[in-house]
Amino acid sequence: MNLLQYQHQVDAELDRLVPAETTPPETIHRAMRYSLFAGGKRIRPILCLEAAHAVGDAPPGVVTVACSLELIHTYSLIHDDLPALDNDDYRRGKLTNHKVFGDAMAILAGDALLTLAFQVLAQLDLPAEPKTRLIEELTVAAGTAGGMIGGQVADLEGEGKPPDASLLETIHRAKTGALLRASLRLGAICAGATRAQYEALSCYGEHVGLAFQIVDDILDVEESSEALGKTAGKDAQKRKITFPAVYGLGTSRRMAEEQCRRAHLVLEPFGSRSAGLHELADLIVQRKS
Amino acid sequence: MNLLQYQHQVDAELDRLVPAETTPPETIHRAMRYSLFAGGKRIRPILCLEAAHAVGDAPPGVVTVACSLELIHTYSLIHDDLPALDNDDYRRGKLTNHKVFGDAMAILAGDALLTLAFQVLAQLDLPAEPKTRLIEELTVAAGTAGGMIGGQVADLEGEGKPPDASLLETIHRAKTGALLRASLRLGAICAGATRAQYEALSCYGEHVGLAFQIVDDILDVEESSEALGKTAGKDAQKRKITFPAVYGLGTSRRMAEEQCRRAHLVLEPFGSRSAGLHELADLIVQRKS
Repeated sequence: MNLLQYQHQVDAELDRLVPAETTPPETIHRAMRYSLFAGGKRIRPILCLEAAHAVGDAPPGVVTVACSLELIHTYSLIHDDLPALDNDDYRRGKLTNHKVFGDAMAILAGDALLTLAFQVLAQLDLPAEPKTRLIEELTVAAGTAGGMIGGQVADLEGEGKPPDASLLETIHRAKTGALLRASLRLGAICAGATRAQYEALSCYGEHVGLAFQIVDDILDVEESSEALGKTAGKDAQKRKITFPAVYGLGTSRRMAEEQCRRAHLVLEPFGSRSAGLHELADLIVQRKS
Repeated sequence: MNLLQYQHQVDAELDRLVPAETTPPETIHRAMRYSLFAGGKRIRPILCLEAAHAVGDAPPGVVTVACSLELIHTYSLIHDDLPALDNDDYRRGKLTNHKVFGDAMAILAGDALLTLAFQVLAQLDLPAEPKTRLIEELTVAAGTAGGMIGGQVADLEGEGKPPDASLLETIHRAKTGALLRASLRLGAICAGATRAQYEALSCYGEHVGLAFQIVDDILDVEESSEALGKTAGKDAQKRKITFPAVYGLGTSRRMAEEQCRRAHLVLEPFGSRSAGLHELADLIVQRKS
């Protein structure tokens, strides 16, 4: 798997999908592009592309599908960073969207990226049947009932509550897990996965999603703001429910590794076609930012 | 056309579509429902239902489709009312969403309603082909290029600029016109409209949309906050570009009537099946709030 090549492919497609900075009203398109091209690692699109590859040959539209996940992810970051929510000034080492464009434009840019995610799927050159399934998966993963918004609300409401293992899992399965799992599912659907393949990739997505979040929590404690490109130590400061807060750093690290191990296991039926997904699982656990 | 009966039908379906207030995380579902059931007139859903009726027999799913428009409309009101945008404390005589639930929850409730609009369409019990067309129409109408968000941005950026007829039209065609036109189009698509019927209903939607906005601008000048259920006189205070500001009240009133007259004219081919749409055009121009 060539990570850099994937990132270029995703970036080029995002550039094609989002209206140019010269398209009126220009400010909103500038704001959308600012956050979209702020150095994201494109983990969700790459998981989607590798899931499709594990199943078989995906139609060309799979890159667009992969980008819809990044549009949703970026909208959620812009809204999360707002003063009313996490109030973050930096993200990936750059000023956050509202610090550059103001709160009003940041709210609208988030709304616009969310809307665009579904537009690019609806306009995709694919048969209508898989398209509606893709849209449904993405709306559910981004929504309130077990989805991203639901996780965000539970996270906000959990601030200051005593660290609790069950609440922690509920929050993270929804807040980051649902969209990561959807990344795998969208790729699987594109490539015409069987039910068993779809379920196996969903399962891989759940393990990798949990590992991703545990590592995120650990990095917030261990790394400097400079290394992370965002303010470190915010979880403790806001008394958020995190894995290190509930289990301690050592156990959290072992839990991430255990999730990673399980992710590898469920890939067995895909053989060598899942080499990229194996690499990604390791990358997610070993990352430093 | 029985307006009250339509409103009950739409309210009952919205109640079915939005997770209950007891579904966790409860706060977000309470916040979504608070604004959704705050006394909206359901103009967009009713236009959708009447457009379908004008064409022929629509499948039962058309009520769900109609509700997707109200979900989008309500999300846009919640975000527009935020302190970072229009900073309104009242809407339809009730406290705005963020005044009750706080800015963070209001942002997330808007996001959730927007996401849910596409979810209910994707999950609709209809063939996949019209479904993807419905979703595409709605995303474009809600988006940045000539759609609702684009109009909102142009409106924000127009504040304080000299009143200009061409900018005024650009703003309103996008800000309120696109979603009103989409209301007609969604109904038309559901009922299997021919190309000519689709175009005629789109045209009706454009006239009615413009009339609606002109009347909105006039009411903001003429009516009291009490009658409107929201703060009156805000347009002038914010130096917004409005029809009365560009054309004066008398000409604005005549322009609304002219748009209404044209709306009636394009309905001719639908005969008596469009009686409801005729009534709605008159209601929109004659309304007092």
